[in-house]
Amino acid sequence: MISKPTTPSAAPSAAPPAGSPAVPRVLAAELPQHVGRHVTLQGWLHRRRALKTATFLVLRDRSGLSQTVVTDPRTAAAVAGFPEETVLQVEGLATASTQAPGGVEVTSPTVTALSGPAAPGPFDLYRPDVPAALPTILDHAPVALRHPRLRAPHLVSAASVAGFRAALDELAFTEVHTPKVVGTATESGAEVFSVDWFGSPAYLAQSPQFFKQSMVGVFERVYETGPVFRAEPHDTARHLAQYTSLDAELGFIADHRDVMAVVRHVLAGMTASVRTRAGEACALLDVELPDVPAHIPEIHFADAQELIAAHTDEDPRGEPDLAPAHERWLSAWAVREHGSEFLFVTGYPMAKRPFYTHPQPGRPEYSNSFDLLFRGLELVTGGQRLHRHDDYLAALAARGLSPEPYEGYLAAFRHGMPPHGGFALGLERWTARLIGADNIRRTALFPRDIHRLSP
Amino acid sequence: MISKPTTPSAAPSAAPPAGSPAVPRVLAAELPQHVGRHVTLQGWLHRRRALKTATFLVLRDRSGLSQTVVTDPRTAAAVAGFPEETVLQVEGLATASTQAPGGVEVTSPTVTALSGPAAPGPFDLYRPDVPAALPTILDHAPVALRHPRLRAPHLVSAASVAGFRAALDELAFTEVHTPKVVGTATESGAEVFSVDWFGSPAYLAQSPQFFKQSMVGVFERVYETGPVFRAEPHDTARHLAQYTSLDAELGFIADHRDVMAVVRHVLAGMTASVRTRAGEACALLDVELPDVPAHIPEIHFADAQELIAAHTDEDPRGEPDLAPAHERWLSAWAVREHGSEFLFVTGYPMAKRPFYTHPQPGRPEYSNSFDLLFRGLELVTGGQRLHRHDDYLAALAARGLSPEPYEGYLAAFRHGMPPHGGFALGLERWTARLIGADNIRRTALFPRDIHRLSP
Repeated sequence: MISKPTTPSAAPSAAPPAGSPAVPRVLAAELPQHVGRHVTLQGWLHRRRALKTATFLVLRDRSGLSQTVVTDPRTAAAVAGFPEETVLQVEGLATASTQAPGGVEVTSPTVTALSGPAAPGPFDLYRPDVPAALPTILDHAPVALRHPRLRAPHLVSAASVAGFRAALDELAFTEVHTPKVVGTATESGAEVFSVDWFGSPAYLAQSPQFFKQSMVGVFERVYETGPVFRAEPHDTARHLAQYTSLDAELGFIADHRDVMAVVRHVLAGMTASVRTRAGEACALLDVELPDVPAHIPEIHFADAQELIAAHTDEDPRGEPDLAPAHERWLSAWAVREHGSEFLFVTGYPMAKRPFYTHPQPGRPEYSNSFDLLFRGLELVTGGQRLHRHDDYLAALAARGLSPEPYEGYLAAFRHGMPPHGGFALGLERWTARLIGADNIRRTALFPRDIHRLSP
Repeated sequence: MISKPTTPSAAPSAAPPAGSPAVPRVLAAELPQHVGRHVTLQGWLHRRRALKTATFLVLRDRSGLSQTVVTDPRTAAAVAGFPEETVLQVEGLATASTQAPGGVEVTSPTVTALSGPAAPGPFDLYRPDVPAALPTILDHAPVALRHPRLRAPHLVSAASVAGFRAALDELAFTEVHTPKVVGTATESGAEVFSVDWFGSPAYLAQSPQFFKQSMVGVFERVYETGPVFRAEPHDTARHLAQYTSLDAELGFIADHRDVMAVVRHVLAGMTASVRTRAGEACALLDVELPDVPAHIPEIHFADAQELIAAHTDEDPRGEPDLAPAHERWLSAWAVREHGSEFLFVTGYPMAKRPFYTHPQPGRPEYSNSFDLLFRGLELVTGGQRLHRHDDYLAALAARGLSPEPYEGYLAAFRHGMPPHGGFALGLERWTARLIGADNIRRTALFPRDIHRLSP
């Protein structure tokens, strides 16, 4: 009655079902270690080329490509019926071959189809480049993403999140999971999605901001890696309606510089993780990973404006924010002057920052906040927050906001909160910047925007 | 112009802002290593007790509790004004004391308030037990969760997710992030939340099922740890309207047993992670961590019904599902017969499983699916899925479903998909079972249900 125990291996247990390989599966990348032995390969038929005396099958699995040579006419006739992308199992002999990729190919194969014959895809997945426009790619994501070049950004992305978490785990942060549906649209009314919550109005969360701040009162240091939603009505190459926000918040800071130190540590961790976990994807995409300097240069917003006024034809002084062109200029300046692809701009004017932002002591028109510029673009926003209940009431009043919708949020501060701050980093934006993507949609598996709700 | 570089430490950089400690912060748990030295503690005033000749301040930080003794009358008068939960900084001498917790206390302190005086909380956080009903706790989550016993489940939860990811990273799974808003409510129409998507109807995703399956075609092995949404209209102790689903899916399996092997590996990883990363939280909650046997026993659904019929007063044979009482009975049986708190029940009738379920070869009324029972309750559901396009069309037709709304999903199968399967595990359910919670809401920081949208 009790069947055989399960074992943690990808190989079948005791009685293999019909069709299971007699020899355990070997990945394409492992093939060179098996020369002279019988092996089983499993993967997608990436490319089939029939020559006069032999048919070559290129099989793709998660590790890469392998080559199988069919010379037996009966087998050649059988495989002639398999379109590309059909899933195959190949059992044969791993044989050294100077012509084959990796110096080894499989000979004398038995070939079995594991799927039905595949229908033709939106474009040829075996070509080194992707001969399709972005909308075609996105419409056919489940099959288009199999192309190694379209798949690679997502390996970079996965490695980045792993690096983010590992860096914060090292600093004793606790991971949290906060609600993605909220009762009040408190951060910015215009760009929220409405949800019907059992008949009551509700909204998709634009950020875990309020939750992560209040959880500083519980765990001191928290992070979350989860979806956020912006009802962004513009159709740009830089915006998604759902993206993955990498959020962190920590208490008992002196000021925003303690937050910036954590940002640096996190960026170093993410870059290192991409290097070790997604090295092949980076090579495929010609990604040049940045050096994260031990000390990321920083410049005050006011000084940045002076610098731009002194060295360009423009005079942004008095403006409450940096224009995209100015961000690019500053980024290039940081590379020239400091050899750094990262630059912190600190002290953004309070007028442009949210009400929970902590002002700069002695210069209350500026704030203890920062943006991190990376390769010409804002990548991270963060800063010190207010932590005294009275300061919150005053900040809301100064902006003409009623404290009532913020009740749940303000409760944390009424009961004692330490000086704290944090930051948010958009995963897709980071990946897009890292790989030099022309459109952020290339870094989301199934992007969501004003025009796109499927697949 | 360029300020001092930032350094990755919680201590302030070059010029410490006013109020920064002269001596770097020490956590409560580190205090015994600093006897005889000047230290800075920072935390919440957990408890203040004024005796005739001394006032005792118990400070709480993320590592635990510490004790400070105030004998100087002026300081004693000052701290008399601080209500519990006020955030304090204490600079003083770490002094050995046989009476103090941990054998050390801080003497001759200078005490500074880092927050305003805290308002009284919903209940006394310093009492060892929580004298409040669940609704009160949930209404005041930002402050109630500071209680060590209410905080502990979330440390167990964070450690569990870390263990889940680490176990799958070991097996070369790739983390994915899938849409939480979908254009069609395909899995089950009744229990979805509606979203207004730029004026078009959309729905919150009930699971990443379709996405994770199609991503097997891209990465072979994927996992996701993210929110899912069920418009569960019942107000029970077991259901949440948003919960964190730990999902995995893998290709090139022989059958569902390969998936079960991964489940076992994951459970072992989660348990080990809880043991090492949340040991204190477990001790506080008297959690007895389960042994995950090298081989989790399994029983076929039909055999389980025979067993229940033979050994109890009930005869469930012919029923398409197990009643909760039968799950409990089987769980107890597995402990008795196999010394295992985990039991796989395999082969659930196709009638009760979703259309993508793979039937059992030779017994098509049963399926290659499983539930994992843990301590009397279903914890994991999984199995082998269909992988041939024709099988999907047939399965939908047999249930009277039109393939049209499934177009995007079916595309993956039209282009070659390997035999695959996966599973889902509710994080909150796991944590609740582990700690023996009376209500699953104790394991979500800010639970969402039919009555609760805030805080």
